[in-house]
Amino acid sequence: MSRKFYKCNIVIFGAHGDLSFRKLLPALYHLINDGYIDNESRIIITSRTKMNDNENINLIKEKLKIFLNTEEKFEEEIFKKLENLIKYCFIDFKNDKTFKNLEKILVNNQNEERVFYFSTSSNFYETICKSLDTYNLISSHSRVVLEKPIGKDLISSKEINEKVLDYFEEDQIYRIDHYLGKDTVQNLLALRFSNKMFVPLWDTNNIDHIQITLSESVGVESRWEFYNEYGAMRDMVQNHLIQLICLLAMEPPHCLDPNAIRDEKLKVLNSLRDIEEKDILNQTIRAQYSEGNINGKKVQGYLSDGSSQSETETFVALKLFIDNFRWSNTPFYIRTGKRMANKSSEIIIQFKSVPHSIFDNYTIPNKLVISFDPNESITLNLMHKIPGLDEKMKLQEVKLELNPPRVLVRKNEAYERLLLDVIRANPTLFMRLDEVKAAWRWTDKIIKSWQNNITPMQNYKAGTDGPTSVVLMMAKDGRVWHEH
Amino acid sequence: MSRKFYKCNIVIFGAHGDLSFRKLLPALYHLINDGYIDNESRIIITSRTKMNDNENINLIKEKLKIFLNTEEKFEEEIFKKLENLIKYCFIDFKNDKTFKNLEKILVNNQNEERVFYFSTSSNFYETICKSLDTYNLISSHSRVVLEKPIGKDLISSKEINEKVLDYFEEDQIYRIDHYLGKDTVQNLLALRFSNKMFVPLWDTNNIDHIQITLSESVGVESRWEFYNEYGAMRDMVQNHLIQLICLLAMEPPHCLDPNAIRDEKLKVLNSLRDIEEKDILNQTIRAQYSEGNINGKKVQGYLSDGSSQSETETFVALKLFIDNFRWSNTPFYIRTGKRMANKSSEIIIQFKSVPHSIFDNYTIPNKLVISFDPNESITLNLMHKIPGLDEKMKLQEVKLELNPPRVLVRKNEAYERLLLDVIRANPTLFMRLDEVKAAWRWTDKIIKSWQNNITPMQNYKAGTDGPTSVVLMMAKDGRVWHEH
Repeated sequence: MSRKFYKCNIVIFGAHGDLSFRKLLPALYHLINDGYIDNESRIIITSRTKMNDNENINLIKEKLKIFLNTEEKFEEEIFKKLENLIKYCFIDFKNDKTFKNLEKILVNNQNEERVFYFSTSSNFYETICKSLDTYNLISSHSRVVLEKPIGKDLISSKEINEKVLDYFEEDQIYRIDHYLGKDTVQNLLALRFSNKMFVPLWDTNNIDHIQITLSESVGVESRWEFYNEYGAMRDMVQNHLIQLICLLAMEPPHCLDPNAIRDEKLKVLNSLRDIEEKDILNQTIRAQYSEGNINGKKVQGYLSDGSSQSETETFVALKLFIDNFRWSNTPFYIRTGKRMANKSSEIIIQFKSVPHSIFDNYTIPNKLVISFDPNESITLNLMHKIPGLDEKMKLQEVKLELNPPRVLVRKNEAYERLLLDVIRANPTLFMRLDEVKAAWRWTDKIIKSWQNNITPMQNYKAGTDGPTSVVLMMAKDGRVWHEH
Repeated sequence: MSRKFYKCNIVIFGAHGDLSFRKLLPALYHLINDGYIDNESRIIITSRTKMNDNENINLIKEKLKIFLNTEEKFEEEIFKKLENLIKYCFIDFKNDKTFKNLEKILVNNQNEERVFYFSTSSNFYETICKSLDTYNLISSHSRVVLEKPIGKDLISSKEINEKVLDYFEEDQIYRIDHYLGKDTVQNLLALRFSNKMFVPLWDTNNIDHIQITLSESVGVESRWEFYNEYGAMRDMVQNHLIQLICLLAMEPPHCLDPNAIRDEKLKVLNSLRDIEEKDILNQTIRAQYSEGNINGKKVQGYLSDGSSQSETETFVALKLFIDNFRWSNTPFYIRTGKRMANKSSEIIIQFKSVPHSIFDNYTIPNKLVISFDPNESITLNLMHKIPGLDEKMKLQEVKLELNPPRVLVRKNEAYERLLLDVIRANPTLFMRLDEVKAAWRWTDKIIKSWQNNITPMQNYKAGTDGPTSVVLMMAKDGRVWHEH
């Protein structure tokens, strides 16, 4: 295997936060073990909790033991390699002078590769950038990773991004959407653009509609205050769902260069048909979960979780269109919510029926089902003759696995892929500013209509598939949500 | 299960012959056991070997024990049901008067269903028809089944068919091609016409070429004298291979009625581009097997099997074209032979490559492989992303099974299907005279060119895949035969 070792200094801000313990440090643990990171690299854990190196290492070790997936048991030997790269650094964003500590650690070498990972609230982005600049820590070999949410609408997002752009060039900024780090999501590009079979099929002539479901069974719980500022539209639709739509709908890029791909995604974003106020009632649903049961356990409603007054949706369903040659009038139905019956992420490509059926029994239209949560799989529903001697040919629907046979290697987590891409300076799977802006512009319009109260806030019982109106949205068009 | 019992009188001529023992009687054994045949039906075994009913039953029992597939063990209980329907009848074609015996057995009821199965040389067809007519045994409820070969060219085939047509209407004549009785072959229609996925793919824009291989490892041995009159072109191409091409290439019929399907097949036959003498060297290969090894056992060459002088081919490969909108300039490569390395029947739909590859490593074009001998299976080769963290997306070819999951029921033999269809008077899977004529017209032209010695007779070692020129035929076009 021709594996490259990357030498890099990774500075994590918010390194003692939840995301860092759950995702970033486990990802680094694996990248080191898999031999991607040179042992002269450094991982700088910044925190405003004062501690010594030993205390920091013990804290990280304790957390890794909890957050490494059950299938990946913690191994001292691997941790040793990680530990060797880790440096603790006391930083308090409110005290510019504490960045002196970082300066001491980072060699003053403008040629070294530096990744600044902002795993913090976007409120701190400007301060951090300014302090880094003060100590002259940003060079042309530096990159910065921004976690969502980056603002809550087009205006605030622009504002935050512009502040970061005062210190970093656009091509140094890596905006994470962890859905793009999933292998099955990247496989969408491979399937669409390396298989002639799908080429003539992938358009409005052959596809009846596309469905995407991103459902979670967890609620907002302790994150209520935070979540209530955003809601499902900003938290899930503006980024993950719209990114998936881009990958499904984009024209073939002329190559796999980061900008070639992102140019095509941008074209999709710019082709999204605005949902006008007159259509908002037909094409959008917003809802909040109420008390219900999840796995037999009673759970509170959204309002009981926090304040009894909230206009924040925990569920969104949209019917949307892409106005271009390929997709003209093909509906995309998307839904996402918290406290739903199942955790599930899946894409359904529903093909049209054959134009005329010559068979006696019902011909069920073909369907491609791409799941990437909880398990990754691709299945195709095809019709076959039922074997046997029936005089009139009878058909049966057969569900076929299109996945490669499972290889007995550990599945990489999305954050491993994305962190490695930042380290090796490949921005393909990160959102460019124009994409982010186009997505906000489109979702802002819907949110504004909602704020004008054109669509009522609906309710759904926790542990269900959302309000029944979601079923009706499809039923009105003579369609149904895919069920297992 | 809504299964219909069919009441019928089946008269088999040549009932003590090889085909009858190997295929017809086992098929009837199963049809009776599976409850398709009413117990007031009769199976009349005619033979010119004088014997009593008991001797006839014992002979049939002995042969069934040999020829029932190993997976279907002979069962006395089932045989009893078959035995109850069997009547022995002495018939000597050369002695018209012996048909009196048949008259005695068949109730003189013009409304009863009668199937006359001519499992004899076509030399006897006229005599048998005449005698049946003399004794007034043919009614509008009678059907006749003709086994191949029906003549050896257009003229002789017309002659024989015309003689039978003096006694039976065209819609009473069932010309058997046992390949059409195979479930996977019928499934071709289901796949093509009930799956939208295949609809836009099935043409010259998306398919690079189609290959069909029907290879046998057996030689001609004791059948030498007979086979030498025909050869692979008449024995395999004119019927089986051309029929498969029809099913693969036909336009969608407007319904599944027998004539709707056969009209579409005829259109394909009429669109076959004649292979002119100028192209005969490039588009045809004929060959005879020479001494070689099959499964480590030395076998004789074709000439040593019979006479040292023979211009009969035991192998044919053709490159052919269908001149219509759908298939314009898409080559069909077919090959068939005896004494080849493996027994194998398979169809390869080779799709074109994607118009432009954006991937670093080679993109292998999609391929649909339909096998129906020795095992029935359908596989699709698709490209997928290799899971993992490679910076540039790497692809792998994945071979996917498109078969329905195996059901634990006995697979029906082609002859069961076809016999049952004759019994229930459904001619869909039988060749209409205009199809047969069109096929002969096309193959006669090639045979004539061969007789003018435009193509030399080549040799191939028994136990190989045919002469190496067969590989070159594809290689010249930048293509290869599918290998496992």
